[in-house]
Amino acid sequence: MRCINVELQERRYPILIGSDLLQDEQRYPVEDGGRVMIVSNPTVARFYLKTVTDTLEKRGCVVDHILLPDGEKYKTLDSLNLIFTKLLQGNHGRDTTIIALGGGVIGDVAGFAAASYQRGVRLIQIPTTLLSQVDSSVGGKTAVNHGLGKNMIGAFYQPTAVMIDTLTLNTLPKREVNAGLAEVIKYGAILDYEFFEWLEKNIDDLVALKQEALQHCIARCCQIKADVVAHDETEKGDRALLNLGHTFGHAIETHLGYGNWLHGEAVSVGMMMAAALSEELDHISVEDVARLEKLLARANLPTVSPDGMQPEDYLPHMMRDKKVLAGKLRLVLLKSLGQAYVAADTEHKLVLNAIRRCSQAD
Amino acid sequence: MRCINVELQERRYPILIGSDLLQDEQRYPVEDGGRVMIVSNPTVARFYLKTVTDTLEKRGCVVDHILLPDGEKYKTLDSLNLIFTKLLQGNHGRDTTIIALGGGVIGDVAGFAAASYQRGVRLIQIPTTLLSQVDSSVGGKTAVNHGLGKNMIGAFYQPTAVMIDTLTLNTLPKREVNAGLAEVIKYGAILDYEFFEWLEKNIDDLVALKQEALQHCIARCCQIKADVVAHDETEKGDRALLNLGHTFGHAIETHLGYGNWLHGEAVSVGMMMAAALSEELDHISVEDVARLEKLLARANLPTVSPDGMQPEDYLPHMMRDKKVLAGKLRLVLLKSLGQAYVAADTEHKLVLNAIRRCSQAD
Ligand SMILES: NC(=O)c1ccc[n+]([C@@H]2O[C@H](COP(=O)([O-])OP(=O)(O)OC[C@H]3O[C@@H](n4cnc5c(N)ncnc54)[C@H](O)[C@@H]3O)[C@@H](O)[C@H]2O)c1
Ligand SMILES: NC(=O)c1ccc[n+]([C@@H]2O[C@H](COP(=O)([O-])OP(=O)(O)OC[C@H]3O[C@@H](n4cnc5c(N)ncnc54)[C@H](O)[C@@H]3O)[C@@H](O)[C@H]2O)c1
Ligand SMILES: [Zn+2]
Ligand SMILES: [Zn+2]
Repeated sequence: MRCINVELQERRYPILIGSDLLQDEQRYPVEDGGRVMIVSNPTVARFYLKTVTDTLEKRGCVVDHILLPDGEKYKTLDSLNLIFTKLLQGNHGRDTTIIALGGGVIGDVAGFAAASYQRGVRLIQIPTTLLSQVDSSVGGKTAVNHGLGKNMIGAFYQPTAVMIDTLTLNTLPKREVNAGLAEVIKYGAILDYEFFEWLEKNIDDLVALKQEALQHCIARCCQIKADVVAHDETEKGDRALLNLGHTFGHAIETHLGYGNWLHGEAVSVGMMMAAALSEELDHISVEDVARLEKLLARANLPTVSPDGMQPEDYLPHMMRDKKVLAGKLRLVLLKSLGQAYVAADTEHKLVLNAIRRCSQAD
Repeated sequence: MRCINVELQERRYPILIGSDLLQDEQRYPVEDGGRVMIVSNPTVARFYLKTVTDTLEKRGCVVDHILLPDGEKYKTLDSLNLIFTKLLQGNHGRDTTIIALGGGVIGDVAGFAAASYQRGVRLIQIPTTLLSQVDSSVGGKTAVNHGLGKNMIGAFYQPTAVMIDTLTLNTLPKREVNAGLAEVIKYGAILDYEFFEWLEKNIDDLVALKQEALQHCIARCCQIKADVVAHDETEKGDRALLNLGHTFGHAIETHLGYGNWLHGEAVSVGMMMAAALSEELDHISVEDVARLEKLLARANLPTVSPDGMQPEDYLPHMMRDKKVLAGKLRLVLLKSLGQAYVAADTEHKLVLNAIRRCSQAD
């Protein structure tokens, strides 16, 4: 088992990474005999709810659960209220523990519920998708969506621990695993050339869900994100680098309608566009762009713009991005493989060129 | 104008207390030309919305507002969502400022909205009831109610400033003013004998809303609460003292049904019961109890149990209080006038006796 410590101003908490963690009752930071509310959805509960419940009962805990319907569209205030109702019906007090058992959607809703139930109760994150293991469970962001915007309502709230059982990925649809690998590759590209090289050697093992490779990889990603977050709790500096490929990616997600491409798939193409643009600006070489493309392709990720989306379709979406400041596009680009930076105001013509280079020939 | 600074671990913020504050555009901690969302209700808006809006417009601010229906029963997640919708429809970003203009209900809902909109935006509290000026606007607690419990959902969230314009009390119903005075008298009784004596001299001026007396009084109460909160952000120690009279008072509120007696009225009788019990325990004298009774009566507050509520009705409600630990009643009592303490396990017979002493003779 690996352990990454996230250092915060007032306290620290561990991210535990291993296989068969869920069965290990000693790993759960709960009080013996304490109360627990597991928040999950039917898809994930089918595989893991019984294990987690039985394991906690060995500690004498009284374990309740609530299952929210599966899907991003249930990441709402209404789902939040279902959690509160269940907690209140069961007379859960301030000393209860909420466990988020699922992907990023469950993590975000259950995390916000923990932040606001009685103004804050203990939270344990058990992320079960690769994306949530390497990204959403680290950093303390929680949120629900509003009809008028994604992630508009939430809190910064840190868990007591994050428990990552890499065996849970065995039941995750392959397409979701690959989408998670896009974020993994992103970490290498923006901040860690050595890790990028490691990925080039080990990507096949990751795709095949080899446990040892997975654990090394997830630990490295969590460490990178934890470092970034620790240095930049307020989201003004380094944290922006985590958005490599995301401004292009969001344009794809919005254009296709959310849910048609997975987030990681859109980010994969977005990273290619950012890389092409970085090459136009003479930061990285054509060979570097090709290395990134190859790595993404080996993870079965798309590297060109989706069918039916024209290069001209991108900029209007991109200009509506939250990162646009005073009408100026702020893009994360690569100085080199393993070193990203924020470009404050890139010429639209160059951006369009880069998008064209990553679009299908007619 | 008076200014109390609330010292927090990471930052400080001012509580400004004066008359004609609302008209003074320089007092508002907003950016010139910034965006503002005022949250209020029709009762309060009728008197003060135009003044606040016009004043902020002198700073070039773009001022929106949303009015929630008046009343505790609208302190809900639904009202919260109305605020979010209005903010999103108006394209308010993370740099917006929410102003809570109203009593404790508006302060609690708008405060929680500010805590959770885009994970936190700037908040200015403009409390317009005496209770909210001396109590709810200090300490950073925000919350909404749930069908199954009061204040069950919320956050700790500190404002950028609290602006208390004492002239706003001129439009407040007298009964609400008096209810606020119950909390004022509480501060003297639990922590400040000198202030208690000052109240004995000046209570008539307070009831008559004399500005100078009001400002001195509110500043003193805010200082006491700010000190308590600063020493006890986690609510384990001193903060409990602020609950003098509240366990008895909640029993009255619950028994009569919320809204029949005002909170301050129930607390007034509750403080009499706590004082009677303290006297039974030989901490304070019969004369002290009489002084407290006289002070409350001069503020037109009730000092005996409501008609139709029997002494036996209290304990069952009290045992359901949040402060009950392992079946043991924890009560705030008086060591002396101006010095309260938490009694961990008082005999039920003595409690009942004290309640009887404050009940109407048949
Ligand atoms: N808080 C943050 O910092 C942060 C960062 C990135 C993304 N997010 C959020 O994360 C969400 C996306 O997360 P996601 O990609 O994990 O999606 P998800 O939570 O919707 O999970 C994807 C699908 O996989 C299923 N699933 C999860 N674990 C499984 C398992 N072990 N076996 C079988 N099926 C499983 C889920 O039920 C779902 O159908 C978005 O809402 C996004 O906004 C948050
Ligand atoms: N956050 C905290 O620490 C804290 C502490 C104590 C109480 N509270 C909360 O505060 C709430 C009670 O606050 P409250 O007593 O101010 O009640 P309130 O907000 O309901 O106000 C009482 C009435 O006075 C009206 N009003 C307000 N200002 C007025 C003015 N200047 N002129 C005319 N009418 C005016 C209101 O519209 C309302 O009808 C409760 O919800 C309670 O839970 C919170
Ligand atoms: Zn992402
Ligand atoms: Zn009170």
